[in-house]
Amino acid sequence: MIQRYVYGHPLPTDAVVRDLPVLPGDPDGLTVTQNAPAVTFSMKLEEDDLVFGLGETIRGINKRGHIYRSWNLDEVMHTEDRQSLYGAHNFLVITSGKRTFGLFLDDPGEVTWDLGATRLDRMDITSCNGNLSLYVITGRTPRAVCHEFRGLIGSSYLPPYWAFGYIQSRWGYGSSEDMHNVIHEHRSRGIPLDGVCLDIDYMDHYRDFTWDTDKIPDLPGLVADMRSQDIHLIPIIDAGIPADPSDPASEDGVRQDTFVKREDGTLFRAAVWPGLSYFTDYLNTRARTWFGSLYRPMLEAGIDGFWNDMNEPSLFYSPEGMQAAYAVADELRGKNLANDDNWKLQSSFGSLASSRKDYQSFYHDLDGLRVRHDKVHNLYGFGMSRATMDGMHAFDPDRRFLLFSRSSYIGAHRYAGVWQGDNRSWWAHLKLNLQMLPSLNMCGFLYTGADIGGFGNDATEDLLLRWLELGIFTPLMRNHSALHTRDQEVYRFSIWEHMKNIITVRYALLPYLYSEFMKAAREDDLMFRPLAFDYPHDEIACQTEDQLMLGNECMIAPVCQQNATGRIVYLPEDMLLVRLRAYNDMDVEPLKKGHHWVPARLHEALLFIRRGCVIPFAAGKTESTVGLKDHPLYLIGWDPQAEGYTLYEDDGITYREGSFRVLIPSDLPDSVFAEGEAT
Amino acid sequence: MIQRYVYGHPLPTDAVVRDLPVLPGDPDGLTVTQNAPAVTFSMKLEEDDLVFGLGETIRGINKRGHIYRSWNLDEVMHTEDRQSLYGAHNFLVITSGKRTFGLFLDDPGEVTWDLGATRLDRMDITSCNGNLSLYVITGRTPRAVCHEFRGLIGSSYLPPYWAFGYIQSRWGYGSSEDMHNVIHEHRSRGIPLDGVCLDIDYMDHYRDFTWDTDKIPDLPGLVADMRSQDIHLIPIIDAGIPADPSDPASEDGVRQDTFVKREDGTLFRAAVWPGLSYFTDYLNTRARTWFGSLYRPMLEAGIDGFWNDMNEPSLFYSPEGMQAAYAVADELRGKNLANDDNWKLQSSFGSLASSRKDYQSFYHDLDGLRVRHDKVHNLYGFGMSRATMDGMHAFDPDRRFLLFSRSSYIGAHRYAGVWQGDNRSWWAHLKLNLQMLPSLNMCGFLYTGADIGGFGNDATEDLLLRWLELGIFTPLMRNHSALHTRDQEVYRFSIWEHMKNIITVRYALLPYLYSEFMKAAREDDLMFRPLAFDYPHDEIACQTEDQLMLGNECMIAPVCQQNATGRIVYLPEDMLLVRLRAYNDMDVEPLKKGHHWVPARLHEALLFIRRGCVIPFAAGKTESTVGLKDHPLYLIGWDPQAEGYTLYEDDGITYREGSFRVLIPSDLPDSVFAEGEAT
Repeated sequence: MIQRYVYGHPLPTDAVVRDLPVLPGDPDGLTVTQNAPAVTFSMKLEEDDLVFGLGETIRGINKRGHIYRSWNLDEVMHTEDRQSLYGAHNFLVITSGKRTFGLFLDDPGEVTWDLGATRLDRMDITSCNGNLSLYVITGRTPRAVCHEFRGLIGSSYLPPYWAFGYIQSRWGYGSSEDMHNVIHEHRSRGIPLDGVCLDIDYMDHYRDFTWDTDKIPDLPGLVADMRSQDIHLIPIIDAGIPADPSDPASEDGVRQDTFVKREDGTLFRAAVWPGLSYFTDYLNTRARTWFGSLYRPMLEAGIDGFWNDMNEPSLFYSPEGMQAAYAVADELRGKNLANDDNWKLQSSFGSLASSRKDYQSFYHDLDGLRVRHDKVHNLYGFGMSRATMDGMHAFDPDRRFLLFSRSSYIGAHRYAGVWQGDNRSWWAHLKLNLQMLPSLNMCGFLYTGADIGGFGNDATEDLLLRWLELGIFTPLMRNHSALHTRDQEVYRFSIWEHMKNIITVRYALLPYLYSEFMKAAREDDLMFRPLAFDYPHDEIACQTEDQLMLGNECMIAPVCQQNATGRIVYLPEDMLLVRLRAYNDMDVEPLKKGHHWVPARLHEALLFIRRGCVIPFAAGKTESTVGLKDHPLYLIGWDPQAEGYTLYEDDGITYREGSFRVLIPSDLPDSVFAEGEAT
Repeated sequence: MIQRYVYGHPLPTDAVVRDLPVLPGDPDGLTVTQNAPAVTFSMKLEEDDLVFGLGETIRGINKRGHIYRSWNLDEVMHTEDRQSLYGAHNFLVITSGKRTFGLFLDDPGEVTWDLGATRLDRMDITSCNGNLSLYVITGRTPRAVCHEFRGLIGSSYLPPYWAFGYIQSRWGYGSSEDMHNVIHEHRSRGIPLDGVCLDIDYMDHYRDFTWDTDKIPDLPGLVADMRSQDIHLIPIIDAGIPADPSDPASEDGVRQDTFVKREDGTLFRAAVWPGLSYFTDYLNTRARTWFGSLYRPMLEAGIDGFWNDMNEPSLFYSPEGMQAAYAVADELRGKNLANDDNWKLQSSFGSLASSRKDYQSFYHDLDGLRVRHDKVHNLYGFGMSRATMDGMHAFDPDRRFLLFSRSSYIGAHRYAGVWQGDNRSWWAHLKLNLQMLPSLNMCGFLYTGADIGGFGNDATEDLLLRWLELGIFTPLMRNHSALHTRDQEVYRFSIWEHMKNIITVRYALLPYLYSEFMKAAREDDLMFRPLAFDYPHDEIACQTEDQLMLGNECMIAPVCQQNATGRIVYLPEDMLLVRLRAYNDMDVEPLKKGHHWVPARLHEALLFIRRGCVIPFAAGKTESTVGLKDHPLYLIGWDPQAEGYTLYEDDGITYREGSFRVLIPSDLPDSVFAEGEAT
């Protein structure tokens, strides 16, 4: 059941797809405190209350014990102390032995979530502007609450089938030659590959919707050549359009009045990659349509996937901010700077990026309603995803396109996936990758994954291999890294053959993973779940932070510790351990409920299948998802008498409904089952 | 056995206390590559090689899989990617089933350690200046190698007994009133306390060896008043002396020529807290003696403990660096800054601190030998510790003083302890606190601990309590936090009684902890060891990263995960679980070798005692270490037939040798032993 309460004057967000009646008064169990304009919702947290949700955030699966802040930010340091990342996903579920309910604050401005941080036993959620719809969602289980919520916010974005293939990316790729090299190095070694991303360097001076014709003389030719090898080209698009009349998009946007403005009606400018730029008013329908139309020439060149970046929006500096920094520098020039003055100078330049002051200095036109940006800040990336996907569907309404975005808000999950942002080559971020999956799923973001191997800093050989062993399970499986970091393509490492073998496991698992993804999307369900969702009465399962339920049949437990030759895995029920080395190299072992030390050498990925279940596996190796069609399936499970698996299949490219096919062990003679007794 | 090899022309460091003959040629098993001036020592790493050591460094107990850099740095971000912290501890031990040996590079300049990072199977250690003594230490076990090494570098610093008590600190404490408040809040609640630190705010405008007489009108009176309550005052001293003739220390240092100079003979200046400052040449005997003498007035005021900070040395900026930053700012003023120019401007001011260029611009006088700072950079903090301790011993040669330093080099362990630097209120840093203990011990630093609760960022209630549950075992047990972070004294939190109770456990354990500390110090042994040292043939023990052996009897396994009500503990042999809640509240349970889920609620600390061992515990509660003398001891162990424990005791304040006393279960009727069968 969903109950809706309204505070202040909520702005339209399009987060939800159902218009629920507004109930009078305040929700039961929440204390509401007005401190105009802020409004705070408070509650006592019981010792056994678990808190899940908040989508893309740092820290654990259980979100208790930190202050989070919904305020979309280009954050390069995903450390424990940070409060905000790129998305604002204002939904959480509180569950214990005694109660289970969800809260969704449809509030596009700043919201803080003190979840037992200040006091262990207290939750305070504060809407800083006090204008919101509050939805209270009850259900028998956390999964049921999420299902109910997902019905409210609408069905998740569906990527094409090829988007589940392995994707190689790097900040620095910019030319046809780069693409050819990457493809050659993969194909010549038999490393499967379905897509390659272009990062900002492909553009002409970082200008959206341009490409450097010295580096890419023939874009349609390049796309066609790649497609002939079953590889898709995925260029980046940024939120800022250079404030330069010589730039066609810029000139056109100014003429068509599609950019955000300052209070005095002049165009707002701030620097991003190309220098001072304008920012499309994605909260305006006409501007969105205009921006979406800009993708058309690239779509016509054959491109069918994009990634949208810098759409928090990230701002490097505004002219006003820069002027203020220079004023500080001028004031302090030549002085002997003790403590305070030194920090004042440092922070004058150091705090220019994405400043509050700049976000307070421009306005949106919400189809007639003028709103200062900071009141609706968290909608910006959502609007860009919507503009892009609408633009792509205007080009071809029946086709599924790949789109993933850095910034998002609930509602954006209907238009695009998200990647988990600018993480680092840290073992902690391998674990964080896992921890974000269920909370993103809860908020509707099913197509997601992190930069495998880490974006910032240098990856070691073992980190990349272990990360691939998690990445084979995430819908978006992309190896991406930053300029000036160690080259991170699989073939750069001495142990590339192990990496290749693990990627072949991804492809062998794809029939299953795609089927589970589509079931979750069709049924408003979760592909990845905390163990607490499936075993709510198991105290140990409820606090397991490095394992997840995957689909209805599996559990994953990747090795997240360097130099480990195995790990402790907690089995909340009897399961079949599947130790995977390559598409055609694995062993299985039935294990009893409880803790197990599970050996997993560096080149071995772990998967666990519930006792009564089987999952399909594709036999044979392939270079891309295209080749998968030819492969027969077999089943893996504990018991040949198991009921079988219901496989969802469709054409993978249009929105036509697919079909279900029941796979029965007795029909698939090559299937693999446990031998011997469980230990 | 220790073999010494020499490369280039080593500078004197005083790291070692024995002058070993130099062997010709290169050590067996290392490939030596000259790339003038650098020299690299390379070796293949076998799959089962474990690498321990490097003292104060980030990442795991096993150091494999990262590039470390010996280059003392004021580093505020202890994240996985960083290469350097505050200390340079160039000793490591490599051990596997097949071989065990240690390497010590006595090289005061920059050294890089690629320990399987670039290639999994390769170690490359590079001395950037190529002037060093390389010691190769062999032994039957890692512990034996460490023992041998410790004999080479000399006995560890001995703090007074009271320094093992609970110490409260905060950046922001500066006045007599602050001290009185902190003491009152502890004493009135019965929270034990032995020391309170003063941070930089007590000084008159951050000038060393001054105090703000508005805030502290009567320093000797304050010290005496605190001592009457059995509490010691521990002021901070920084490395920089203000470049200001009105400052007496500054004026005297200029007159006596004790500061480092630029190439042209003028005094080197760089800004730290008080603004532009001079830096004492701690590498010069005369200057060291001079600096040590500056402590005398404060010693005469009754102070018997200090902490030395900013001695990497940390430099905020040099006038030359600042001028260059302004030049960049002037060049870019008013321009539309695209990508590269924006970063150029940001980094011009953002990279002023502790820059290489500044470290290359001044010189030391090594008692007649003029050396550019960067060649001996890592000795600076060591020299300051030595100056301080020598100064204190000049004041009273028989007395043990408390001294701990931020920066260090091997050799400094003879003069002072170290704290683990400016960590953060992160759960990851609670674990990192544990992981640094054995490597610091290996390098001689026995008196150590981290800022409990974390220095930067805001601590949550549960983080501080869990951290105290580790802190009760570390020789330095200090709660410290930064300005502008959440107040972090125990009494600020709603669950302060649990925190107090855990601190009482520390005091009850002190007879044992002090005894084990002194045994380790006297015998060149380790108080904290990786499990791999004690169970080298146990594959799981060898990769355990969140447990340690403590003394000869115990193992510790703190809870490092938020919201956990217990943890998995690996027992490499049968052990007695002791679950500690207060000095008089615990339960024990015998557990069999293997993995166990051990419940540990938020207010419960875990300790494990080996099956054949007993440890002493002090009965009764106390306000400080002084009161401990009155408490009878009892024993805790598995078996009342156990052999007993040999307790080391001394006067705790002078260097007079103490005595050993064997505690026998049958003599101590209140002793606690396991009941029932092990599970």
